[in-house]
This record gives sequence, C-alpha cells and structure tokens, in this order.
Amino acid sequence: MELSETRRQQIMSDYSQGFVAWCGFEPIEVGLGFLEARIFIRDEHRQQDGFIHAGVMTTMADHSAGYAAYTMIPEDHRILTVEFKMNFLRPAFSDLVICRARVIKPGRKILVCESDVFDRQKNGEKLVVKALATMISVPQAELTRED
Amino acid sequence: MELSETRRQQIMSDYSQGFVAWCGFEPIEVGLGFLEARIFIRDEHRQQDGFIHAGVMTTMADHSAGYAAYTMIPEDHRILTVEFKMNFLRPAFSDLVICRARVIKPGRKILVCESDVFDRQKNGEKLVVKALATMISVPQAELTRED
Amino acid sequence: MELSETRRQQIMSDYSQGFVAWCGFEPIEVGLGFLEARIFIRDEHRQQDGFIHAGVMTTMADHSAGYAAYTMIPEDHRILTVEFKMNFLRPAFSDLVICRARVIKPGRKILVCESDVFDRQKNGEKLVVKALATMISVPQAELTRED
Amino acid sequence: MELSETRRQQIMSDYSQGFVAWCGFEPIEVGLGFLEARIFIRDEHRQQDGFIHAGVMTTMADHSAGYAAYTMIPEDHRILTVEFKMNFLRPAFSDLVICRARVIKPGRKILVCESDVFDRQKNGEKLVVKALATMISVPQAELTRED
Repeated sequence: MELSETRRQQIMSDYSQGFVAWCGFEPIEVGLGFLEARIFIRDEHRQQDGFIHAGVMTTMADHSAGYAAYTMIPEDHRILTVEFKMNFLRPAFSDLVICRARVIKPGRKILVCESDVFDRQKNGEKLVVKALATMISVPQAELTRED
Repeated sequence: MELSETRRQQIMSDYSQGFVAWCGFEPIEVGLGFLEARIFIRDEHRQQDGFIHAGVMTTMADHSAGYAAYTMIPEDHRILTVEFKMNFLRPAFSDLVICRARVIKPGRKILVCESDVFDRQKNGEKLVVKALATMISVPQAELTRED
Repeated sequence: MELSETRRQQIMSDYSQGFVAWCGFEPIEVGLGFLEARIFIRDEHRQQDGFIHAGVMTTMADHSAGYAAYTMIPEDHRILTVEFKMNFLRPAFSDLVICRARVIKPGRKILVCESDVFDRQKNGEKLVVKALATMISVPQAELTRED
Repeated sequence: MELSETRRQQIMSDYSQGFVAWCGFEPIEVGLGFLEARIFIRDEHRQQDGFIHAGVMTTMADHSAGYAAYTMIPEDHRILTVEFKMNFLRPAFSDLVICRARVIKPGRKILVCESDVFDRQKNGEKLVVKALATMISVPQAELTRED
C-alpha cells in the first residue's frame, strides 16, 4: 500500500486549517503513516518564562499524529483524538520547532501514533517532547455534534 | 495554609501571558490548589471539522493545572510541566469552554494535578476532557536555557 | 438502565481468574459502571524496598476498570484495555489495598474509566494511585489470536 | 560514562525480588540506560480470555524501565515510579514475553524511559505494549513510609 500523489497533496493542504493555520504550523513532508511539520516561533508562542508553551508543542504533536493516521484510513473517514500522553523532556526556546509523527500500530478503527518534537537549538536538534497518542477512525457521516 | 489576597491577585494577573493571552484564556477564580479558567471560542480555535481543537483544550488544561500547582509552592519557585495525559471524551463545539484544575497530590518537588474541561452546550456543561498532569517545582534561579 | 442481579453475580465471579486470582485480588462490590476490589498484601506483592509493587496496584486498577466497563456492555461483548496512565502519588506499604473503579464516559465502542487505589494505613485510607484508562468493547466472536 | 562490571552484576541480581521474582521475570541483559528482561508464560499469567494479562506486561515494562534508570543514578539512590502510560497494541498470547527498556532522557532527579514489550509468536516477535514512564531518583536515606 502506498500514498497516491493526489491523496498526499490533499493531506498536505488539509493540514493547516483553523487553530493550526492560525498558530502557524506547516506540514513539510507526508508519507504513508508519517508526517513532519514545523513552526517558526514568534513571541506569542512563548509562556511566562520565555519558553515555548507546552500547548504549542502539544497541538503540533497531536495534530501531526492525527494526520499521520489520516494517511492510513479510507477517504470517507476522519480521525479524532481519543487520548494522548506527552512527556516534556527539556525546555524549548529556539526559533524553529519540528515535529515528526508516525503510526506505530495501524488498525481499522484504532491507530496508535508517536510524535517526537524537536527544538532547533544552536548545537543541533534537541528532542523536547515525546508523545504517545491513540486515534480513532470515524466515518465522516457519523461525525456529529450530538452525543 | 491559605492563599493570601496579594498572592491570589498576583497569580490571577500572571496567568494570561504569551501564548495563553494570545489564545484568549482567562482565569475566573483561584484558590489554594485550585484554578478555574474560561475561553470564549472564536473560529480560529476550531479544527478542520468545526470542533474545538484538542490543542486549545490541552493548552487550557495544562496551563490551569500548572497555575493550580503554582498556588502551593514558594514564591521564588516556578512550575514546569513534566508530563500529562488527556482523554477526549466527546467533541466540543460550543462558544464557551471552562476548565477546572486542582492539585490532587501536593509535594515539595512533584505536584500531581487533575483538570476537567467543560463545553458549555445548550443542554448544560459537558465534560469534554479529563487530564492528569505531573508538575515540578523549580527554584526560579535554576530555570535555564542550558540542558 | 440497571445491572440485573444475575449479571451482577456473573461479573463478581468472573472477576477473579488467571493472573488476578493467582495474585489474590477479590471484588467487593459491583454496580452499573462501578467496581470495588481489595487485596490482602503478602510478602510476594512487595518490591525490593518493601513497598507494594507498582505492578500489583496497576493490575488492580486496570482489571477493576475493565470490569466496571464490562457492566455497561452487551453480554456477548468483552472488554480489552486500549491504554492507561497511572500516577503513583505516594508509596504504599500496608496490609490491605482497595481499588475503586468507575466509568466516566460510557460509549458503544470506547469506554473511559478512572481507578483510585487506596492503601489502608494506620491513620486511614490513603490515595496511592490515580489511573485513567481507555477500554474497548469487542464482540466476543471477534476476539482472536490473529492480528 | 560506563557501567562497571560490579555494578552491572549487582543490578542483574537486584532485579528479581519480591513480586517480580514471584511472577518469574528475569533480566537478560543490562547496560548503561538499558535493560532487557523476559518471562516464560504460565497459565497464571493469563486473563479470563486466555491472553496474557495487561498487569503482567505492565509490571515488566515498569520494573525494567525502573532498572534501566537505576543504571544511571548514584549507588546510594533508589528509583521510584512517578507515573507511566502504556498502550496495548495487540493481544499477547505466546509462551515467551520480552521487554526492552531504555532511558530516553536522563536527569539528576527525573528520568524518562521507554519500554517495548514483545510477544514471541510463531511468525516472530510482535510489539504488544509501548510504555512511556517517568522515574524519580531518591536518596535511599529519604525513602520513608511517612508522607
């Protein structure tokens, strides 16, 4: 199984909408079960002590994992996040943050993903966040605002 | 032990800076080991399917848990997030999201917190995110950009 | 919806099998979306420093959450653990450990549960583990050893 | 920094005590920030549907991560588990389970570890559990039964 060029481009352009576009996250590369994204850090991405906010890195880790999963499901399905866990390994403070997400267990319904977030520091990329996420594939027709 | 009025006000005004102010999160109430916050949802907080982005709710749950922890540490210490896990119980789509965070295990170094995030829907508040987070208290002087 | 007496008794007797029976976990009470269990601690439940092993408390928290979920699904379905996260709040060392598990979000397919584990110490019950778990309901006929 | 032969042997023999020895977990190999262990599965390690109990694999993942961390701390310190999260990727049912744990972020106080658990099935090793764990290094003199 491979990712068609049409589907690849559709996923690349679908990635940055709403909150993700507003924050400034961009996809760099996508493949079957894989997505890499980046963000150029601005002042509004930092927290009270000048570090990049955990929420910025989490949004990136979650969203990239979701789109890595999205490469592996039927076109009429959508991905929702069931849950995730993130470890913040060291403070991030540079001007460029990279995320690499991959599916570690595909499934028809449940997909488990990992995301690594890197801070592009002077002496090289540093792993700053390790995320483990569970995604669910839902037929688009079943996406609803009722519980 | 109680939270002094001075400290309470300092924490209220410290809460909204950088990414958190930019997104529009506001604290409503703070007490010893407790913080409640809200956000009025705008289009830029949503994702590709119109739901509120998991990253918005995660930022709120993490930041509020951090400040709930911040009420229980010495004034010359700061809180960093060690890790968290969030379960997304149902989609959120309303115009107002509320977060209630509390410390469930204080400690001199490690503080464990819970955050509940609610979507203010037509038929009442719905619990949409359940978060469990580990925070660490660090002397401000030790906060550094070196690893 | 309520739990029939027949189903309640079936779940009580189903709880302690295999690893769970061997370790000595016993159910005390079960209701719709709820289960309480206990274990009398023996030397073989401890770790190298004399504390109760995290694995003992995790097994209890996971298994009890799974059976709390089991009360809310059709009789021809089974529960599998998708994932869980546990925070170890303080060391446990007493002779009696209690677990209270409940479903915080039922669902046809995915059920989210919480478990609290308590150590019965001299000055009362102490919360020692806080767990958040995701369970999946699977038709028994689909349980298989093939991937 | 390397692991001395004396220390390596001390850690190998320290690994299997209490609950871990009783269950039958054995260390196979240990290095700086790394530990591999195994267990030969007996009936008492299974659950009600014949699969290996999540508690067995969790105990192994947690304990092995703890000892991987233990290789990186001073000899008068001990490791306690702060928290972990485990994803159960597929059912395990074979007769031999292997765990490989490694420290992904060492630290003076906090160490973050990953454990992979594999089921030795007919067609090869299958990754069945992915774990992400936070450990804390505590001076042995501070280990206490008081809170």
